[in-house]
Amino acid sequence: MAKLTSRAEDYSKWYNELVVKADLAENSGVRGCMVIKPYGYAIWEKMRDEMDRMFKETGHQNAYFPIFVPKSLFEAEEKNAEGFAKECAVVTHYRLKSDPNNPGKLIVDPEAKLEEELIVRPTSEAIIWNTYKNWIQSYRDLPILINQWANVVRWEMRTRLFLRTAEFLWQEGHTAHATRDEAVEETEKMLGVYADFAERFMAIPVVQGYKTESERFAGADETYCIEAMMQDGKALQAGTSHFLGQNFAKAFDVKFTNREGKQEFAWATSWGTSTRLMGALIMTHSDDNGLVLPPSLAPIPVVIVPIHRTDEQLAQIGDVADDIIAKLKAKGIYVKYDDRNEYKPGWKFAEYELKGVPVRVAIGPKDLENQTVEVARRDTLTKEIVPIEGLDQYITDLLQTIQQDIFNKAKSFRDEHITRVDTYEEFKKVLEEKGGFISAHWDGTPEEEEQIKDETKATIRCIPLDAEEEDGISLVTGKPSKRRVLFAKAY
Amino acid sequence: MAKLTSRAEDYSKWYNELVVKADLAENSGVRGCMVIKPYGYAIWEKMRDEMDRMFKETGHQNAYFPIFVPKSLFEAEEKNAEGFAKECAVVTHYRLKSDPNNPGKLIVDPEAKLEEELIVRPTSEAIIWNTYKNWIQSYRDLPILINQWANVVRWEMRTRLFLRTAEFLWQEGHTAHATRDEAVEETEKMLGVYADFAERFMAIPVVQGYKTESERFAGADETYCIEAMMQDGKALQAGTSHFLGQNFAKAFDVKFTNREGKQEFAWATSWGTSTRLMGALIMTHSDDNGLVLPPSLAPIPVVIVPIHRTDEQLAQIGDVADDIIAKLKAKGIYVKYDDRNEYKPGWKFAEYELKGVPVRVAIGPKDLENQTVEVARRDTLTKEIVPIEGLDQYITDLLQTIQQDIFNKAKSFRDEHITRVDTYEEFKKVLEEKGGFISAHWDGTPEEEEQIKDETKATIRCIPLDAEEEDGISLVTGKPSKRRVLFAKAY
Repeated sequence: MAKLTSRAEDYSKWYNELVVKADLAENSGVRGCMVIKPYGYAIWEKMRDEMDRMFKETGHQNAYFPIFVPKSLFEAEEKNAEGFAKECAVVTHYRLKSDPNNPGKLIVDPEAKLEEELIVRPTSEAIIWNTYKNWIQSYRDLPILINQWANVVRWEMRTRLFLRTAEFLWQEGHTAHATRDEAVEETEKMLGVYADFAERFMAIPVVQGYKTESERFAGADETYCIEAMMQDGKALQAGTSHFLGQNFAKAFDVKFTNREGKQEFAWATSWGTSTRLMGALIMTHSDDNGLVLPPSLAPIPVVIVPIHRTDEQLAQIGDVADDIIAKLKAKGIYVKYDDRNEYKPGWKFAEYELKGVPVRVAIGPKDLENQTVEVARRDTLTKEIVPIEGLDQYITDLLQTIQQDIFNKAKSFRDEHITRVDTYEEFKKVLEEKGGFISAHWDGTPEEEEQIKDETKATIRCIPLDAEEEDGISLVTGKPSKRRVLFAKAY
Repeated sequence: MAKLTSRAEDYSKWYNELVVKADLAENSGVRGCMVIKPYGYAIWEKMRDEMDRMFKETGHQNAYFPIFVPKSLFEAEEKNAEGFAKECAVVTHYRLKSDPNNPGKLIVDPEAKLEEELIVRPTSEAIIWNTYKNWIQSYRDLPILINQWANVVRWEMRTRLFLRTAEFLWQEGHTAHATRDEAVEETEKMLGVYADFAERFMAIPVVQGYKTESERFAGADETYCIEAMMQDGKALQAGTSHFLGQNFAKAFDVKFTNREGKQEFAWATSWGTSTRLMGALIMTHSDDNGLVLPPSLAPIPVVIVPIHRTDEQLAQIGDVADDIIAKLKAKGIYVKYDDRNEYKPGWKFAEYELKGVPVRVAIGPKDLENQTVEVARRDTLTKEIVPIEGLDQYITDLLQTIQQDIFNKAKSFRDEHITRVDTYEEFKKVLEEKGGFISAHWDGTPEEEEQIKDETKATIRCIPLDAEEEDGISLVTGKPSKRRVLFAKAY
């Protein structure tokens, strides 16, 4: 197996190679669309199942809405339409026919032109609020707390596996409420769910905050986000939760009779995470040897590799392995036993390192004699000799330790790469030499934000929710500022 | 709540009303596309999860392939292309722009025309086999056993909720094998999985068989199917499994080096079930009062409704209910407790009847005195007084009984409506007066099949796998036949 390009050498190349070599995804025959391969999809399934559980626990139900949005609905909420019009796939016909000039080939049948074009959903607010109109008459019909798992299409010109693809998989929550306060509360609650999921399950530390006006979701009154830091110091937006005010209710005329008997527009939120999280996962934890996966997301948390010269040895190792596998299964931990003969142990070790299997157990004839095994940790690349007696508990504990250690490591890195600066000069120097997040004062105008972006490529990732009030002077214009915001270059 | 139209009065209207009134699905603002509502989606989720478990148990993995198929790939397998060209959504542009003549409106940007049109997948053989080409070099790369959960689009002109919609959700398995025998075995194995799922989980008896040439999937060498019977005697194809031979491997040039070192085309299967199964579920079991759900698929298997006059009574009933809920939860059975004050018990009873909740428990003050509850079965509409002591075991057993009884009832109905006939006259009489499946001899030609279809609207649903050899005379042409096939009108 050819070695990966190292992160130090070319971070971007390292990422692209890793995604393909670890069998996570690959480019398809369709421009900008990816194939998510079984190993990558198994990780996504674990993420999806856990988020789904968390959504249901917070009172949400799943539903499914059409993939197509008729143009007249698409354009109803103007800001939202404007935001997505430039990058949407448009269905104009509903039939192909044989090409009379070219036997065996097909052409679009001009007689099958749609009366109204259909947009392949880039997001579903329009189609969903057009539906909610019929579901909401009274405050008794509220709240509506719905989530959808679906594919969406945004015609991005420059694409990268998982990070930016024309089609991607995501979940989008769409809720309707009787009051502004309740909708804001929901927006913040779901941000909290995302942060909890990212930190506890993906082992990715995140900053919770809200976006500046220019970085808001098209059609939102406020966009909250969680921002993660990759190992190259760049930021990656890992989830967003939008307070949509009454914008969509007004665009689709969704009124209800409130408790006082008066007609009012409903209040809305939407919130989403996508297969982009796979990119965040890979770039937060992995190293030059390959993937590093937190145990909670690893399709194979533990692998056992037998090392033997004779069939008799293999049979004895197999008996020991069976026992370990059964005990760990009873604790809900899946173990793969790889006794394939066509591959040597060394090849298998490299393969499981590349694929980020958190714990590798090797058992050889000497181990059988000593009643021990060799346990290797993927995250630290360290090995230990461990007694077979009590091994199941040892591994169970080790998986928890790894989960926590991976998070701690990412958090240390992240915290070391948040720098407070007070001058624009310092800002540029830190951005250039150290990277990471820069905590600095901003005058609150889109103009200053734009100038900094143009000059340094850094954007305001968020205004952190926990930002303390502090008198300061903005970076470029020197105007007074009340709190620091986080700048960074971003994916 | 207005009563449902009865099945006897208008079966088709009964179905349409039931789907909407039971909150399963509704038509959307997009022609032919449906909104699957939370209650309907919760049933689909249970079906999906169980099938997914069965696929994984038989060695399959999930993956995800692009929604778009470039026209040149779409047309590569000619029979497949021909079969789907007449009903496919075509993306021709990737951008909208402001309408200069109509402020606030959008038009397709003629400058954003795609060089090659993209077809929204009606099925994914083309895009998947174009991908497999890069995955398959040697017999060691085989078999590939992949399944995908996805949405697909077929531009049907006449649509009905769940049964026939322009967009639907489905799973599609796509496997590649080194030998013909192995591919045929896979095709048959997955048919068996479908039959097992339908009977054991959905409580729907099915006939396993294969299709005649004219009813085959476009591009298949053999199409196997499971056929279910609805209460109006019509057939519904509930799942198909295709042996694709080397057709797609040849179209996409997927060759591998076999064990003998020779180049060979790979052998393929594909198999699918869809949200159409929801239609089968509804039409097999439900009655004039609403849905009847098998316990294994019911989002709410058990509901408890308190009947009280005073708050004190409600509190006492609540205590009893809590205890029942906890005990059933420990057995993995979800129980809903409906103590909403705004609705009367009678309203709730009708609601849960409509929604097919298998077991309804009512607890009133008299029950508390006697330490009993009233248990009502949805499928039989019968009630019993049952002691609270041991109620959890009683309900656990009852749910299993209901699951079995629902299946038995559907099976009796189905078996009573399979009629053997030996003359065309008898055939037409039975079809007209009794309906159901008709077992009869056919001469094996598409011509006789076509004539019978034209004259009676009945098609050959399948050649049953368990059909015994029997000398007979075909219905119309009087030619010799070796086995009976099943005819029916179908959805």
